[in-house]
Amino acid sequence: MSNAFTTIGLIGKPHHAGANQTLLSLYHFLQAKGLTVYIEQRVAESLDLPHAQILDLVDLGEKCDLAIVVGGDGNMLGAARVLARFDIAVLGVNRGNLGFLTDLAPENFEQPLNDVLAGNFVIEKRNLLEITVHRHGVLKSSNSAVNEAVLHADKVAHMIEFEAYINDEFVFSQRSDGLIVSTPTGSTAYSLSGGGPILTPDLDAVSLVPMFPHTLSSRPLVVSGSSEIRLKVASTNDAHLQISCDSHVILAVMPGDDIYIRKHPTPLRLVHPPGYSYFHVLRNKLGWGSKLY
Amino acid sequence: MSNAFTTIGLIGKPHHAGANQTLLSLYHFLQAKGLTVYIEQRVAESLDLPHAQILDLVDLGEKCDLAIVVGGDGNMLGAARVLARFDIAVLGVNRGNLGFLTDLAPENFEQPLNDVLAGNFVIEKRNLLEITVHRHGVLKSSNSAVNEAVLHADKVAHMIEFEAYINDEFVFSQRSDGLIVSTPTGSTAYSLSGGGPILTPDLDAVSLVPMFPHTLSSRPLVVSGSSEIRLKVASTNDAHLQISCDSHVILAVMPGDDIYIRKHPTPLRLVHPPGYSYFHVLRNKLGWGSKLY
Amino acid sequence: MSNAFTTIGLIGKPHHAGANQTLLSLYHFLQAKGLTVYIEQRVAESLDLPHAQILDLVDLGEKCDLAIVVGGDGNMLGAARVLARFDIAVLGVNRGNLGFLTDLAPENFEQPLNDVLAGNFVIEKRNLLEITVHRHGVLKSSNSAVNEAVLHADKVAHMIEFEAYINDEFVFSQRSDGLIVSTPTGSTAYSLSGGGPILTPDLDAVSLVPMFPHTLSSRPLVVSGSSEIRLKVASTNDAHLQISCDSHVILAVMPGDDIYIRKHPTPLRLVHPPGYSYFHVLRNKLGWGSKLY
Amino acid sequence: MSNAFTTIGLIGKPHHAGANQTLLSLYHFLQAKGLTVYIEQRVAESLDLPHAQILDLVDLGEKCDLAIVVGGDGNMLGAARVLARFDIAVLGVNRGNLGFLTDLAPENFEQPLNDVLAGNFVIEKRNLLEITVHRHGVLKSSNSAVNEAVLHADKVAHMIEFEAYINDEFVFSQRSDGLIVSTPTGSTAYSLSGGGPILTPDLDAVSLVPMFPHTLSSRPLVVSGSSEIRLKVASTNDAHLQISCDSHVILAVMPGDDIYIRKHPTPLRLVHPPGYSYFHVLRNKLGWGSKLY
Repeated sequence: MSNAFTTIGLIGKPHHAGANQTLLSLYHFLQAKGLTVYIEQRVAESLDLPHAQILDLVDLGEKCDLAIVVGGDGNMLGAARVLARFDIAVLGVNRGNLGFLTDLAPENFEQPLNDVLAGNFVIEKRNLLEITVHRHGVLKSSNSAVNEAVLHADKVAHMIEFEAYINDEFVFSQRSDGLIVSTPTGSTAYSLSGGGPILTPDLDAVSLVPMFPHTLSSRPLVVSGSSEIRLKVASTNDAHLQISCDSHVILAVMPGDDIYIRKHPTPLRLVHPPGYSYFHVLRNKLGWGSKLY
Repeated sequence: MSNAFTTIGLIGKPHHAGANQTLLSLYHFLQAKGLTVYIEQRVAESLDLPHAQILDLVDLGEKCDLAIVVGGDGNMLGAARVLARFDIAVLGVNRGNLGFLTDLAPENFEQPLNDVLAGNFVIEKRNLLEITVHRHGVLKSSNSAVNEAVLHADKVAHMIEFEAYINDEFVFSQRSDGLIVSTPTGSTAYSLSGGGPILTPDLDAVSLVPMFPHTLSSRPLVVSGSSEIRLKVASTNDAHLQISCDSHVILAVMPGDDIYIRKHPTPLRLVHPPGYSYFHVLRNKLGWGSKLY
Repeated sequence: MSNAFTTIGLIGKPHHAGANQTLLSLYHFLQAKGLTVYIEQRVAESLDLPHAQILDLVDLGEKCDLAIVVGGDGNMLGAARVLARFDIAVLGVNRGNLGFLTDLAPENFEQPLNDVLAGNFVIEKRNLLEITVHRHGVLKSSNSAVNEAVLHADKVAHMIEFEAYINDEFVFSQRSDGLIVSTPTGSTAYSLSGGGPILTPDLDAVSLVPMFPHTLSSRPLVVSGSSEIRLKVASTNDAHLQISCDSHVILAVMPGDDIYIRKHPTPLRLVHPPGYSYFHVLRNKLGWGSKLY
Repeated sequence: MSNAFTTIGLIGKPHHAGANQTLLSLYHFLQAKGLTVYIEQRVAESLDLPHAQILDLVDLGEKCDLAIVVGGDGNMLGAARVLARFDIAVLGVNRGNLGFLTDLAPENFEQPLNDVLAGNFVIEKRNLLEITVHRHGVLKSSNSAVNEAVLHADKVAHMIEFEAYINDEFVFSQRSDGLIVSTPTGSTAYSLSGGGPILTPDLDAVSLVPMFPHTLSSRPLVVSGSSEIRLKVASTNDAHLQISCDSHVILAVMPGDDIYIRKHPTPLRLVHPPGYSYFHVLRNKLGWGSKLY
């Protein structure tokens, strides 16, 4: 039987005993099937596999057609921010806390993984955000985000002032602690704890959720995913600002800067074994009610 | 110069002096241009135009290529629920309170209306909902909604129990006072006062907003506009239920019934004069911050 | 050893097999201790205790020094609205769903009840509300509420208009679906699902929580428990209104009426066995986080 | 006519032209009445009053029986944190943005100030919080707050983990961005933009409002003002933490520390001219509805 994927990259939460154990099992399982397996270099250090082929994440993204990420959603986010620009599908094995993005159980990956390798799987496209910071019209920095980009001061509980534009049309000005711009994937993460709505992953949309707004009439706003969002940071802000991407990468923002947030040109292709249900995961994670009958 | 519209229907808030006055002005203004004008029969009664051609709303929808609604958003909703299924564009002149949908000012309609008649306008498609109630697999009643469909008990502050399905996939069960299923157009109406997010009109999406949910983890959910939403009302409910469409039309629902909510096959085509900005209206109505500079 | 209570009334959820069984066990347990036991007449019918002494709820409130309510919080609310005006302590045995007010487990009441009878207990005073409706200055009706009084239209999802006064000082006017006026006891009930804060039972306070307010700046307001709250219903309301007390008793309200809500002159005296913790119950019911260590 | 106050301290927003002008007017107005006037040293520098008597804030608190603060609520908060421990009444003249605490208008202070000096005024007691940080049982630092104490990480949008105790009873553990502990005075400030309820100033209560809680069931909690609140910061936190008092004074908190928050032993005594209405200010600031008739 031919395999849907032939070259597989293993990625994981570094220095985590449980993740290491699962990575070893995956390595031997995939080797035994005659597949080409690469190991991402940061986890390779702890794995003691002298004959394994090791790549950094970018090379892995170029060479492989499937990446398996072992860890929590944070590890998946980190890998996805890099891998989204390559022609690679991504599968998650959960070794963390929550697991919205990592749906295989580590103790029980063989059957679903056999399904996936046999071409029996669901592909879900998840849009990422591309964030660029411009100063006096010059690009200063950029990054991407799977969950959300958050504009805020570099001090906690500090008010900032900015304007928001959609496709060059003025939407609102705001005095608040900041703004969360979230993808559907991120809508169950930080945005949710800030009062944002849940957007299903098939929705081509982005939400703008104010953080501690000074105006009581501020509300979450959901716009088309193809919108170009521009945040114009007031030059009167008395603090330095930041854009934080997935709570991980931080871009510096100065008063007067413009921040553009657009859909990333290529989506993350998330692989799920057959039977995957987004709503099932949602119910489980949020403790929503199960069937009445 | 040829006109973009040749046959125009006039609709309005019945028995309202201000609306009547604007309807008369519109009638003479359009007649003077040599356009064919029909007047909807409920408002015609108060207008004292013995030679005017009068039609009921359905015939008006069939004959005209433009309808002008004079009144508040409630009048626009009522007209739109009927007109959406015809090949007709709709323009609103505000004679009410809010005016999200009615953007011409009554004292100043000539210039923007000239623009519209000259083909200089913006068309915005607004999706409607189609609601059907099924009992033991048999269709019992149906209607449509521009803003929202609300499932609730026929008593105030009374808990109901139901399951929600999207495209036949189980999403959640809920004990609450009810559920608001809202279009982007409705997202600035009842849904907003219930804590729902604002969805821009270009978004093909529908929001599900719980009313007084018993579970603290219930949150607004935004799904694709092409979703088929099914609400399965528990047979254990101890009260009769209702689906209310735009707070106006009420369908009876019995314990055990299934309610299907889908996108209406044809959208409302809303006409705006040049320079219309949804966000401008939003800022005005919600008191959002204006430009900082 | 002398008993802290000598005359005990048994009250319960009528026509409920589980409650009946617990009532029988309680009856024999208390009789065996030589205590005087009265049974409330509505539950007595199902109990088949030919020699038992039967009283209606008011007489039971006058004669007994302890009432034991077997059922859910709804049964406790019903009993408490009547018993609060008598010199009687009240203890709950849980035979329902939630159990904020009923803390004894039916299968295990003996040890905690022995403690209580031996005088080893905690008394918690819970304030009730007294609601009166006035028309043209004349008292039309009145009732009391343990949890909350809710002003709303007699139709669902229907806007009403009213003014709120505290101690004769104007506070706000509001267009909304209604207002929840809640005690600390009620702050974990309907008020909570409407977005109200949790007030601990020792707090002499009342919260005013708007229902679907039209103004986005409406917020829950917490005022002193000794406040006289007056709701002046606008004479322009186009619907009949209601005040519902604990979702159970309903008082009719006409446009133009005044509703006064004050602290009930005597509080409910709720008895808890030793070791009772309000916060323990709260954590359990709301699924709040347990200790980290 | 004898004066209600004889020794008056002038305090203000430093380096603010408008405040300086008002301070000068106040100085001459009070001097002309034969009252003893002291000027706080930081504003004295800009005032060019060579013969004026100058004191630092602490000495001013000891010597004066009335302090007049010219500026915004921020200036009032700063003065109040120091003055609350002295036997001094405080009056505010608004030279800032909001003005919940500063009710005299600068262009029109003479009549209301005459009233106040003549003994015709309202005194409102506002409770402050006293915050102490303990490490291994040893007091490390302390401060007070008029509005609120906020526990958070020293990085933005960073989750922390802590337990909350009331009067040594465990209430909840929480993973969130932090917690706002607010007085009634602070309930219209940062707490409100975080979703907290409004507490009227006469209420002896404190609210605990979670910031971006990870658990969807977290809700604002209002407890008695005489509660001893203890926040036990988990030793597993991976970041340094902070307690910020009125967004102004910051105390360092290490993983494992205990933070105690209690009512300050002496309240701020806020003076208002006759006719002052808290609800009037509230309506104005929040844009709440005015009287219907």
